[in-house]
Amino acid sequence: MSLAAVIEGTREAVRADAANAAARFSVGHTLVPGTATTVDVRVRDHTFAVDEPATLGGADTAANPVEYALAALGSCQVITYQFWAAKLGVPLDSVRVTVDGDLDLHGFFGFTEGTRPGFNDVRVHVELTGPASPETYADLKRQVDEHCPVLDLFANPTPVTTTLA
Amino acid sequence: MSLAAVIEGTREAVRADAANAAARFSVGHTLVPGTATTVDVRVRDHTFAVDEPATLGGADTAANPVEYALAALGSCQVITYQFWAAKLGVPLDSVRVTVDGDLDLHGFFGFTEGTRPGFNDVRVHVELTGPASPETYADLKRQVDEHCPVLDLFANPTPVTTTLA
Repeated sequence: MSLAAVIEGTREAVRADAANAAARFSVGHTLVPGTATTVDVRVRDHTFAVDEPATLGGADTAANPVEYALAALGSCQVITYQFWAAKLGVPLDSVRVTVDGDLDLHGFFGFTEGTRPGFNDVRVHVELTGPASPETYADLKRQVDEHCPVLDLFANPTPVTTTLA
Repeated sequence: MSLAAVIEGTREAVRADAANAAARFSVGHTLVPGTATTVDVRVRDHTFAVDEPATLGGADTAANPVEYALAALGSCQVITYQFWAAKLGVPLDSVRVTVDGDLDLHGFFGFTEGTRPGFNDVRVHVELTGPASPETYADLKRQVDEHCPVLDLFANPTPVTTTLA
């Protein structure tokens, strides 16, 4: 099904019942026994690993959590470009996104108080190719940045509760 | 190297020069040609895919961006439990984390104005086993939640800039 068809189908479903727009996502994580930092992740039928590089005590079997966070942002940008190009009828031949993030390890290790553990700066660099005008792609970018779920997650506070069994 | 040794080594390195605590992470993303939503991700020597399920126009070859965002949070919680247990000398036999997130697709699709595209609620459920007291694990949880990089990313705004080439 084309993305334009997905957009129209979702619009009809949501118009019929707004509750059809409520989406719930669930992910399970288990520390692999005998390792320091290797995590087995399960999402629906998909599984993958998360780990740390040797400098952070891991076996480097996979990217680490903050790299996966940047990958969530970069891939969400790519896919939101695809959806909004389809929605607006903008031709798009290729999409590449690079995401860089800086953080200060004082925060994670608790070496100083008041240093946030997360990223203090994130930069997203987007490269598009296609036959439309630069103004058309600049308009597309504005729509993408307004509607990209993971960009919203990065830029704004999200209510999170943590509970310990 | 044990996590306790990594913590001590990093403490010494950062004490010698605070600039050693500055960490930069970089991730590349390319839409796979001929697909609607399949994204090839590269992080250091690691590669993986991101995709959408069929209901969102994808080939379902992998988890989607918002699921990877939840996985970044859940795996970061697991690893931060491991580091802070090592730092505080708390014995920990196993760590499991489930993360659930709700979002309203009105936001992503732009069907209504004012609906945020990202998660409106996220719940993290942690299960630990080990021989320490419930109070000790409750103290550990407080330290983890204060120092977990991806929990900070979710809960607080992060400065992000997007540029289009």
